[in-house]
Amino acid sequence: MTSKELAQAFTQLCKEGKFEEAGKRFWSDDIVSREPMEGEMAVLKGRAAVEKKGEWWYANHEIHKVDVGGPYVHGDQFIVRFTMEVTPKGQARMNMDEVGLYTVKDGKVVEERFFFNG
Amino acid sequence: MTSKELAQAFTQLCKEGKFEEAGKRFWSDDIVSREPMEGEMAVLKGRAAVEKKGEWWYANHEIHKVDVGGPYVHGDQFIVRFTMEVTPKGQARMNMDEVGLYTVKDGKVVEERFFFNG
Repeated sequence: MTSKELAQAFTQLCKEGKFEEAGKRFWSDDIVSREPMEGEMAVLKGRAAVEKKGEWWYANHEIHKVDVGGPYVHGDQFIVRFTMEVTPKGQARMNMDEVGLYTVKDGKVVEERFFFNG
Repeated sequence: MTSKELAQAFTQLCKEGKFEEAGKRFWSDDIVSREPMEGEMAVLKGRAAVEKKGEWWYANHEIHKVDVGGPYVHGDQFIVRFTMEVTPKGQARMNMDEVGLYTVKDGKVVEERFFFNG
């Protein structure tokens, strides 16, 4: 599977709402996840830590609508666009507009780096 | 000027159609430009080479419509989305859908890396 084919398969799962399956299939065990923020969520290393973040996120956000665009491909990197309407627990419904930059090595995603619109 | 402020100013110029001005103001003299293709356009190094590519592009494409989205920011990198309707010289009118990933160092853009939808 080329990096482009991986990008397409990963993004297709996201378009079907299967975010966790996309991670399970394509993350390296050494995945590094980087968010554009300070604090303990800024950099997470390893599948267990990143899966735990996902579980926390799903438990604390109600997702009303997701639109996924891409993938945009360049060599061993690809970009996916996510626009979402979510309600964080105890807060007001909000729109999220972000992109993920994914780096592929040896057929797995070794880094995901998120960028927020702003 | 922070990287985020640079990203916003750069993207604002693009939204106004002032792509060349964005380059003149914010590219490093050592800018490296990477396109997701083979051949002589794949990697260009230095302001003169990248400006020449721009001149070639504008001379060989009629732009009908441009929509610019972003910036999406993460630390010293930002992403801008470009959707365009263009007619390459001697070819049929087409839609382009791509994103640029920009890396900032010392207040200038030192690398632009383009990703195509596909």
